[in-house]
Amino acid sequence: MNRLIHGGNIYSFARKLHLKPSDIIDFSSNINFVTPKVKLNIDVCPYPDPNYSRLKKAIAKKFNISASLIQLFNGASDAIFNILQRYKNAVLYAPIYLEYKRAQRIHMINRFENIYELPKKDALVVFANPATPDGTYYNLDDLFEIWYKQNNTVLIDESFLDFCSKKSAIDYIAQYDKLIILKSFSKFYACAGVRVGCTISKIKFDTPIWNISSFDENYILQALNDSKFSLKSTQVNEKNKKMLCEILKESNLFTTIFESCANFYLAKLKNLTAFSLQRKLSEFGILIRNCSNFDFLDESFVRFAVKSKKDLKILKKTLK
Amino acid sequence: MNRLIHGGNIYSFARKLHLKPSDIIDFSSNINFVTPKVKLNIDVCPYPDPNYSRLKKAIAKKFNISASLIQLFNGASDAIFNILQRYKNAVLYAPIYLEYKRAQRIHMINRFENIYELPKKDALVVFANPATPDGTYYNLDDLFEIWYKQNNTVLIDESFLDFCSKKSAIDYIAQYDKLIILKSFSKFYACAGVRVGCTISKIKFDTPIWNISSFDENYILQALNDSKFSLKSTQVNEKNKKMLCEILKESNLFTTIFESCANFYLAKLKNLTAFSLQRKLSEFGILIRNCSNFDFLDESFVRFAVKSKKDLKILKKTLK
Repeated sequence: MNRLIHGGNIYSFARKLHLKPSDIIDFSSNINFVTPKVKLNIDVCPYPDPNYSRLKKAIAKKFNISASLIQLFNGASDAIFNILQRYKNAVLYAPIYLEYKRAQRIHMINRFENIYELPKKDALVVFANPATPDGTYYNLDDLFEIWYKQNNTVLIDESFLDFCSKKSAIDYIAQYDKLIILKSFSKFYACAGVRVGCTISKIKFDTPIWNISSFDENYILQALNDSKFSLKSTQVNEKNKKMLCEILKESNLFTTIFESCANFYLAKLKNLTAFSLQRKLSEFGILIRNCSNFDFLDESFVRFAVKSKKDLKILKKTLK
Repeated sequence: MNRLIHGGNIYSFARKLHLKPSDIIDFSSNINFVTPKVKLNIDVCPYPDPNYSRLKKAIAKKFNISASLIQLFNGASDAIFNILQRYKNAVLYAPIYLEYKRAQRIHMINRFENIYELPKKDALVVFANPATPDGTYYNLDDLFEIWYKQNNTVLIDESFLDFCSKKSAIDYIAQYDKLIILKSFSKFYACAGVRVGCTISKIKFDTPIWNISSFDENYILQALNDSKFSLKSTQVNEKNKKMLCEILKESNLFTTIFESCANFYLAKLKNLTAFSLQRKLSEFGILIRNCSNFDFLDESFVRFAVKSKKDLKILKKTLK
């Protein structure tokens, strides 16, 4: 499997352009451009608490759940890797984040065209809400009825839910034992380099001991403790998201800009291919996500993440 | 499996004694008490380089090998977890680090009594060199002949090799494709909270993408770059190790102190049980490793790690 299909490899992109990674304006990465206040000064000598009790307690508080439902992973990618190893049959509501295609036997349901297609009985179904790469938020009530009937184990990836004020699937856990909610902290808390993800579920997975770095544990603890961050992030993202939408509309390059509840927009190009727009923008040190390798999308789809005003202005100028 | 059998959980120990974890004098943990110079100031927003090229290059330089032989893991525990999942039949040269007992089907060879016992054909054999919990270093030439004949995949855990000037098994890789050398950076570089381990092997394992935190990546990079650390650490450890040995001898509590090439001593108690010595020392905030849960050891075995002069003096006083 090509390790770079996720996009977001600014390192090889920068190398190609003879630029430093920090010189790249990266619209391909869905990481929040607003960052929490974190100041780390920790002793890394001792082993971490193998139960990571403080971190679990802080996460439990954030989601208003019992800490016993939380299992920590070395980033959401690690959780996905672990979960897909246990369930050999996976039904993916696609398009979806490409790391899910690691499962051994995959069936895809096209959620744009046939979302109520019956998934295989007993299989693991995977649904991202809000969805990637488009940011659509779905009400899942009808789908849960189907999944319940089909005896599916249900994995709901809520990596981008913090960016909107929509309902989590956490409430379904009380009614449905075979439910796994996946939370990523990298996106909202602006730290792709910090590897902490978690599942909220009655189902537990076998993981190595000490699977979270002490730095990362403390980074997320502090980020969760920054009481002003959530509101500030939401306000700034909302404002800049509108601005990004306007820029894309005004560019007149796209036939469709998908309605999004997340911090990015999927857009369908009119005349250009994703590859050629990507190449043109790269000349200005701008990286965008070519979405042609997502299932059920073609070479006319690109994605832009919400970024700072300064970066958006550069994008605006460049698209003209 | 009890997650705390490894020892080293100073958090629950401190809680029981109503102390802060930092108030514990921890002789149970094999982490180097000499620390490298590291100053972190990094941007955790972007995704790490998925290939971790800089880190691999630095490790390759340290061990004088090709970077292509290196695979990175989220700590040695993660590597052990991954490797043991692939090989269902494992033969452990015991006593050995208890995380290896996670394999599905295990056979133990007692390396104190019958080291040349034939391991099962085609099985994974696991050998720590220097060994834990005793620190014995073995010349592996004869064993490699046996392993080769039995078509074994060979995992050599060299987590503590940096503490002595003995030969690595890396040289065998040129002659034997089915060899995996495991390196931990936590022990020598004094950072159990930093989760970086690696295998040096032609064999590769499937791992999640971005399995190393950016903090941890940079911590190890800087630690490897501290050119004075290795010599300084070796000198101070040698000196304090002699002091520890003297203290244990003078205490007159032990029948045997095992010859050790690592930064710890395994010792066999004369009259006390490990549990009772552990309990007595705990009254002084001192934590030692009760080794009775290691295979082929009984309740008379305890382990002490080399620590600072100050800590050793407290130990000396307390043992009297």
